[in-house]
Amino acid sequence: VPPRETEHELITELTRLFGGAAARRVASVGIGDDAAVLSRPRGLVWTIDAAVEGVHFTRELLSLEAIGARSFHACVSDLAAMGARPLAALSNLAAPAALARTGLARVAAGQAAAARELACPVVGGNVSRASELSITTTALGVATRPLRRDGARAGDDVWLVGDVGLARVGFEALRRKRRGRRPLAEREAIDVCVHAFERPRALVDEGRRLVGRARAAIDVSDGMAGDLRHVATQSRVRITIDEAALRRALRAELVTAAAALGLDPLEAALSGGEDYAILATGPAAKRPRFARAIGTVARGRGVFLATEDGRSRPLTGGFDHFARTAPRDAARSHP
Amino acid sequence: VPPRETEHELITELTRLFGGAAARRVASVGIGDDAAVLSRPRGLVWTIDAAVEGVHFTRELLSLEAIGARSFHACVSDLAAMGARPLAALSNLAAPAALARTGLARVAAGQAAAARELACPVVGGNVSRASELSITTTALGVATRPLRRDGARAGDDVWLVGDVGLARVGFEALRRKRRGRRPLAEREAIDVCVHAFERPRALVDEGRRLVGRARAAIDVSDGMAGDLRHVATQSRVRITIDEAALRRALRAELVTAAAALGLDPLEAALSGGEDYAILATGPAAKRPRFARAIGTVARGRGVFLATEDGRSRPLTGGFDHFARTAPRDAARSHP
Repeated sequence: VPPRETEHELITELTRLFGGAAARRVASVGIGDDAAVLSRPRGLVWTIDAAVEGVHFTRELLSLEAIGARSFHACVSDLAAMGARPLAALSNLAAPAALARTGLARVAAGQAAAARELACPVVGGNVSRASELSITTTALGVATRPLRRDGARAGDDVWLVGDVGLARVGFEALRRKRRGRRPLAEREAIDVCVHAFERPRALVDEGRRLVGRARAAIDVSDGMAGDLRHVATQSRVRITIDEAALRRALRAELVTAAAALGLDPLEAALSGGEDYAILATGPAAKRPRFARAIGTVARGRGVFLATEDGRSRPLTGGFDHFARTAPRDAARSHP
Repeated sequence: VPPRETEHELITELTRLFGGAAARRVASVGIGDDAAVLSRPRGLVWTIDAAVEGVHFTRELLSLEAIGARSFHACVSDLAAMGARPLAALSNLAAPAALARTGLARVAAGQAAAARELACPVVGGNVSRASELSITTTALGVATRPLRRDGARAGDDVWLVGDVGLARVGFEALRRKRRGRRPLAEREAIDVCVHAFERPRALVDEGRRLVGRARAAIDVSDGMAGDLRHVATQSRVRITIDEAALRRALRAELVTAAAALGLDPLEAALSGGEDYAILATGPAAKRPRFARAIGTVARGRGVFLATEDGRSRPLTGGFDHFARTAPRDAARSHP
């Protein structure tokens, strides 16, 4: 549903259509956050997420098991970003007849493995024919004090939990296919990135440990720049990412692999998505050890990068041409 | 994922993959019923349902608003068949870029209208690009004593709540387009069928009133014959539909419209789907007024039709060639 502005307008329209008194009676947090938070039963956190062939993944680059596992982690990542403990999930599998039962069972096996990893059993679902493979997962969790997108306050620091940029570089490595003759360190670094792309992990434990410390949180599905914009807009604050701090937070393997492939690691970190890291904001004194401070929150609007040469550069949308087209990671599957 | 046996095998495979101790701890009813029933929070009933272009609907026959409304009622019908009261829903809209924002907003408007009718507000969701329009809805409800598919007992009667066959005839009428010069009574009867196809209604109130009376229930999404087979298989009983009783339960408009279009109303009732009527079983003495007795439950296996000429005829799968191909109502959109 590109371009981005259209997506934004659509969300606004959907909020108008679906919002209203009835929705507010049932949910204290609704459209516009990672997940809905129900008032009755209290503290129930609920999300739905889709992985569509040709948009979120291609079968050329990923095994059917990996497609299933990724879709599940991506869904549960929404609960992780709310600080919720997953309870259970339902899975809707839609597939062309040509995929056959064994193919669909491989997708389901990937989902089942992820469900075990995340202690979030699949308790039901639905199977349907379709012209393309798509997996829609809904997950329920519980959170005593859910972390929302609209809680950031001026004076907070911005925290990064988990790694960013690796999935983007891993995708590029897979897409180019040839691993070539490279030094061992480069090959190993590329393998780390490919693994991050193939097997992302929802940071459930980390998300829960942010509760009581962070004021706002979001998971990085569309890329840091775009996801931080949601926090800035909904919290009505200005967010500035410190380039030097972000560079220090990047994994060494990301820098090595990006260099080997001729990519910019900072760009991958800012505009690459599907890392399922968590971005949070909170008072400096409350930052947990596993979170790295990479920026600040101030009064104002927008998302900016304070570059190492002392300038402030707006991070609108993504960071580069990858982000110009589409929501989510369409750019990734259709570069 | 046709043919039927393959679908059945797939469900068996998915039950194996997703089942297990973890799933049983969380859900007392899981894969294989209309909806999952959670143990914690107790009594929470949860379903997911997809409506896919070219499989469940075509844009040639239905407005975008009707597509949205139907998809929502179809989802909530799963809760109705469990005797649950709907709480809230999430909506996943996937659409090609060509549909544009206004088109997707029309689908959402149809869903929003259905949500109001059913007192089941949409509290969140997700939007994604895809090559075909598909709407995946998940709904939560509560039920003190959920009606399951596996509760039918020998000696029960089979009850029909709501109408069957109309949607099938309405679809045929729309597909043939020309209404022609017909007597007023025929035109009105066809309009009733078309309306049943365009605007099905989840029987939430009726479903709730079956609790404490019925022992088993299922909603008619794939056609009576196929849906009763689920009850017979899961309850390990033999179900016999009485042709004369079923004919008496058919709406006069169905008989008139079917005759006008050269269709068999009994066949439409047995193999047509998407009526979202409820089939239940229970002791004769407990049958509510709004339910019509159309058959009996006995020891044994399978689903049979006791014909008016005194024979017993197995109702395997659907009833005729419509049902030979595929799960769900694929036959309806691709006759």
